[in-house]
Amino acid sequence: MKKIVKFGIVGLGRLGRAHAENIAFKIPNAKLIAVCSIDEREVEEVQNSWGIEYGYTDYDEMLKNKNLDAIFVSSPSGYHCEQIKKALDAGFHVFSEKPLGLYLEDALEAMEAVNSHNDKIFMLGFMRRYDRSYAYAKKKIEEGHIGKPVLIRCYGLDPAPAMEGFLKFAKNSYSGGLFLDMAIHDIDLARWYMDSEIDKVWAIGGAYEYPEFNELNDAETGAAMAKFKNGTMGIFVAGRNCAHGYHIETEIIGTKGTLRIGTTPDKNLVTVFDDRGINKECAGGFLERFEDAYLQEVKEFVDCVLNNKKPNVTVEDGVLSTIAGYAFKESFETGELVEVKYLETVNI
Amino acid sequence: MKKIVKFGIVGLGRLGRAHAENIAFKIPNAKLIAVCSIDEREVEEVQNSWGIEYGYTDYDEMLKNKNLDAIFVSSPSGYHCEQIKKALDAGFHVFSEKPLGLYLEDALEAMEAVNSHNDKIFMLGFMRRYDRSYAYAKKKIEEGHIGKPVLIRCYGLDPAPAMEGFLKFAKNSYSGGLFLDMAIHDIDLARWYMDSEIDKVWAIGGAYEYPEFNELNDAETGAAMAKFKNGTMGIFVAGRNCAHGYHIETEIIGTKGTLRIGTTPDKNLVTVFDDRGINKECAGGFLERFEDAYLQEVKEFVDCVLNNKKPNVTVEDGVLSTIAGYAFKESFETGELVEVKYLETVNI
Amino acid sequence: MKKIVKFGIVGLGRLGRAHAENIAFKIPNAKLIAVCSIDEREVEEVQNSWGIEYGYTDYDEMLKNKNLDAIFVSSPSGYHCEQIKKALDAGFHVFSEKPLGLYLEDALEAMEAVNSHNDKIFMLGFMRRYDRSYAYAKKKIEEGHIGKPVLIRCYGLDPAPAMEGFLKFAKNSYSGGLFLDMAIHDIDLARWYMDSEIDKVWAIGGAYEYPEFNELNDAETGAAMAKFKNGTMGIFVAGRNCAHGYHIETEIIGTKGTLRIGTTPDKNLVTVFDDRGINKECAGGFLERFEDAYLQEVKEFVDCVLNNKKPNVTVEDGVLSTIAGYAFKESFETGELVEVKYLETVNI
Amino acid sequence: MKKIVKFGIVGLGRLGRAHAENIAFKIPNAKLIAVCSIDEREVEEVQNSWGIEYGYTDYDEMLKNKNLDAIFVSSPSGYHCEQIKKALDAGFHVFSEKPLGLYLEDALEAMEAVNSHNDKIFMLGFMRRYDRSYAYAKKKIEEGHIGKPVLIRCYGLDPAPAMEGFLKFAKNSYSGGLFLDMAIHDIDLARWYMDSEIDKVWAIGGAYEYPEFNELNDAETGAAMAKFKNGTMGIFVAGRNCAHGYHIETEIIGTKGTLRIGTTPDKNLVTVFDDRGINKECAGGFLERFEDAYLQEVKEFVDCVLNNKKPNVTVEDGVLSTIAGYAFKESFETGELVEVKYLETVNI
Repeated sequence: MKKIVKFGIVGLGRLGRAHAENIAFKIPNAKLIAVCSIDEREVEEVQNSWGIEYGYTDYDEMLKNKNLDAIFVSSPSGYHCEQIKKALDAGFHVFSEKPLGLYLEDALEAMEAVNSHNDKIFMLGFMRRYDRSYAYAKKKIEEGHIGKPVLIRCYGLDPAPAMEGFLKFAKNSYSGGLFLDMAIHDIDLARWYMDSEIDKVWAIGGAYEYPEFNELNDAETGAAMAKFKNGTMGIFVAGRNCAHGYHIETEIIGTKGTLRIGTTPDKNLVTVFDDRGINKECAGGFLERFEDAYLQEVKEFVDCVLNNKKPNVTVEDGVLSTIAGYAFKESFETGELVEVKYLETVNI
Repeated sequence: MKKIVKFGIVGLGRLGRAHAENIAFKIPNAKLIAVCSIDEREVEEVQNSWGIEYGYTDYDEMLKNKNLDAIFVSSPSGYHCEQIKKALDAGFHVFSEKPLGLYLEDALEAMEAVNSHNDKIFMLGFMRRYDRSYAYAKKKIEEGHIGKPVLIRCYGLDPAPAMEGFLKFAKNSYSGGLFLDMAIHDIDLARWYMDSEIDKVWAIGGAYEYPEFNELNDAETGAAMAKFKNGTMGIFVAGRNCAHGYHIETEIIGTKGTLRIGTTPDKNLVTVFDDRGINKECAGGFLERFEDAYLQEVKEFVDCVLNNKKPNVTVEDGVLSTIAGYAFKESFETGELVEVKYLETVNI
Repeated sequence: MKKIVKFGIVGLGRLGRAHAENIAFKIPNAKLIAVCSIDEREVEEVQNSWGIEYGYTDYDEMLKNKNLDAIFVSSPSGYHCEQIKKALDAGFHVFSEKPLGLYLEDALEAMEAVNSHNDKIFMLGFMRRYDRSYAYAKKKIEEGHIGKPVLIRCYGLDPAPAMEGFLKFAKNSYSGGLFLDMAIHDIDLARWYMDSEIDKVWAIGGAYEYPEFNELNDAETGAAMAKFKNGTMGIFVAGRNCAHGYHIETEIIGTKGTLRIGTTPDKNLVTVFDDRGINKECAGGFLERFEDAYLQEVKEFVDCVLNNKKPNVTVEDGVLSTIAGYAFKESFETGELVEVKYLETVNI
Repeated sequence: MKKIVKFGIVGLGRLGRAHAENIAFKIPNAKLIAVCSIDEREVEEVQNSWGIEYGYTDYDEMLKNKNLDAIFVSSPSGYHCEQIKKALDAGFHVFSEKPLGLYLEDALEAMEAVNSHNDKIFMLGFMRRYDRSYAYAKKKIEEGHIGKPVLIRCYGLDPAPAMEGFLKFAKNSYSGGLFLDMAIHDIDLARWYMDSEIDKVWAIGGAYEYPEFNELNDAETGAAMAKFKNGTMGIFVAGRNCAHGYHIETEIIGTKGTLRIGTTPDKNLVTVFDDRGINKECAGGFLERFEDAYLQEVKEFVDCVLNNKKPNVTVEDGVLSTIAGYAFKESFETGELVEVKYLETVNI
């Protein structure tokens, strides 16, 4: 049994850097020995700050480093699919940030690559499953505490202050649109908790404050309702204009009880009483809310690599969530109720 | 100006009796002087307990009583329409419990009657609008606190212990089905808060614990998503199997903020800490949760009668909610996305 | 058995008027037929608005009215004792707002009067015991849910906006000081829940924002800790400068569990999410927070009169709370730990 | 500038092991290279599991290891003082778990040692200050958000299931008693938030469920009220019999607002709705509640060592809290109000 997993990471943006720091310092049995980015200054800065041995501006060069055990893909979404494939082909275990790619074709290609390297561990960064509250809810369900789950409600709302940045990005790049970009985590959670695939969906939304969303053929805030193949129900609210902060809330209603995760998205345990009343500040963003989950998921990956186990999140989870996400997108764009079309190549 | 409104009430079931007690004892400028029920013992019992002057087992007889100013209709839903018409024709002001009738035709007939007696005050018992928290939320919206409302989410869940009673009732009577019977209050609230009519709806649901609902062609728990004519969104969850009690929760998401009424349906202000953790008991049912609203709505009615004002809830609110409710029902029964068809005779 | 209790009320200030309205309109089997105030305009206004038969500016005159059954004392505290005695002597049942009087001697005199009219119902307005949440907590304790109570914590904080009015009042009148004026309700609650009398107390406090309190030899905000005769503990925080509103909170810690009433003093069920975070408005004052309790206590009184029962709150509760309150005051003024001295004439 | 702090830890009990794991894996720029315990098996087990280079059963031997930079003292409280002195004398930086020692003399000796090694970093494990919620509250106060703090309320309640273990321990060892052992964290927090030292205290308590506490001359649950030198107030509730779990709650009432940290001690973000109502599970113990704070405090220590800064928590904080704690103990034992006697050698 190997005792340490040596990582090389590609992508040193905000989330990439957070992952890099986690691997470098906070995860038992993991070591960050290589960093890669097309921006040479980023590479040097991270190498110097944290004492990382190898630095690359060329991903293919990093893959030649035989001291590495695993590649962590945290580059822009458009590169994920190809980088996953290359890393697997080069003989590495791979952890990839979501999504598998920008298009369904990417996701399918990534799946094929993963499936043809069955000896390698592959894991996709659906980190919410590793958040302690989400994991606790899953355990409660498995213990039968709420009976049979019949409805899941998911809120995924980005804070309004991030709007400007998003609009700038979206005017020049393909984000996938509100549902594919934002609701994909919720789609995965819904599949996980309801233990079924989405059968039909109707998605609506609009540009209520920012007309730019109409030009982008996208929604500022949207809602979708889904029927799962097992007859259960899903409600999804996604948005980019949440006044009070980063609001991630999930509720599972069962025949014997209900679980609600993050009823209010409190920043911490402090309540402020002042002349405005009783006040709680909200979480500011995903790095804050899921700080611990980003750690836990990589711990799981390291554990899987060291003990040759399959991670809980598979490449199929990525593919199936993407297929469903594209159905949300189609429904929003056509205004119609859409039946999700699964592929013969994907087991559901 | 008349100083006291003298009421006769028809229907002395659980809710009827609560209304009767309110009118008799708790509402300034109101007096209960007549009670009517087909059950003679009920009539006598109420007369004796509360010292009510007139008792009737025949509704038409009560309408001959010239000492009365107003009729309060709290009989089974199937009688509402006819009793409203008769009371208006006999020259009385009328307060009627919801719904206007079991079928859309009833509602339209009632509307016609109300509109042809413009000198009489008619009010429909959508009491939630008179709950202090709901009224406070409306005021906050009108003050612009949350910007433009873009999505409303309504939960209307009956407590599981009421299931047996419901199933017994539903096997012999027409309840209207989950959406028409349960979600009608929420449909009214949604129209009120979003200031628009429902355009399209998709409703789903199932029999998750009680297969009897399949036989009734009804849902034990259901969900619906609606698009309003002004482009905003509505989410409705209705159910008859809520493990923790009577759960009425409403959320309005706006471009500048969000309001949530009844985030958790606490019974009172007591938190119990014990070896199970931190616990709050839930409201047990509508009479408990809306005790005060049932008072406030009748206060408004009395005020309208005494000052010849139009109540905030009109007969059109009843008709339009019913039309929408039937679209929910149709969508649930067909599985299709349904466009709500409004009538030329109803202004929207 | 008499079916209706006919009330005359003395005192038509803000609280007096609220009581008058309750008796006039909201309490079954109660009728307000007389009002008395030294201010003739107040008397006329109330008589005219609500159609009250008798009006008086002279209390002794009202006591001659043989149509009355009960006197409701809601005058300034300095008059309570004498008016209670006179009403009892004139043969009426008496409900009196707290306190029994401004000084302990008053309270003892009132007690003597009550005890020498054993055929008359006397009740003191410790309304909190009739608040549904407080009553629910008492029931939970009696059912043994939290084992043996060992500590009670009481917060009684008046809203800061009421400060100016208080200071104006206190400069010219004897309020009793923070603990006797504000904590008296909490002392009664503590005695009720802990089922024991206070043995020793240490009270501290200061003038933290308003130096005027030093001149008044009073505290703006204060705290007291008490040991009960049965070995249990009490913590009391009182204040007149609560930024967020009227904060009444009570906690009872027991050997098997804990109860908390009003963990946060929410105004209603609405949560507001906006750019300041998650916000709840607070109750503004006692008339709002205890609106229902003010009704329930008089219902109990009416019930006692009609059925010749003893109310739950007795004159001894008033006397014992006052004795304890004066010990709080002495401790605050001397800085010393004070042993409460009970009188032989009062059973404890 | 040195880039890595190499630690040796003494004490591998439950908390010691948690600290060891943190240093070994979760703290940037820290490395655990030596472990010491009188239990050889513990040493071997930890060395083998985590690949720790050096193992010792003799503390003096560890201090001869010149590869070490810092000693982490996590042994039983009775050893702290001597081990701190020895480590400083041997030229190491020292982080010590609280308390400085079991007796005030120990604390003073430790202070003397620290002060005579001014070139060494010493830090005491008052980890609560490093909890994010507590740190956020401190920042709010410093920003003036609540005006001048006037009262602090601290709850420190151990979960009932830990009772048996405690009683077994306390029968054979000196714990310091409820206030010194349990409230010491709260005393430190109070001094920190109120920015003043405790002047007078009255402490009470009893054996309400477990008579063993009487034999130990200790309290099962206790309360204390303190007056600070700057005229502000402190309330402390400590206990070992908390039915619902580990309850740490702190409230600071100011002239302009109030802060409450941990209003309810929720385990996580999940709310469970079931037939018992609305339920949240509680934190089970200090390792769970303060998991992150135990990390943050050591990060601060490492940062101080690497950058030659003074930590926020000083040895004087330990001494002054201990002096105050002994006054709590004296008050509880004598039943009297106790004035805290500070020493000339300690600046306050």
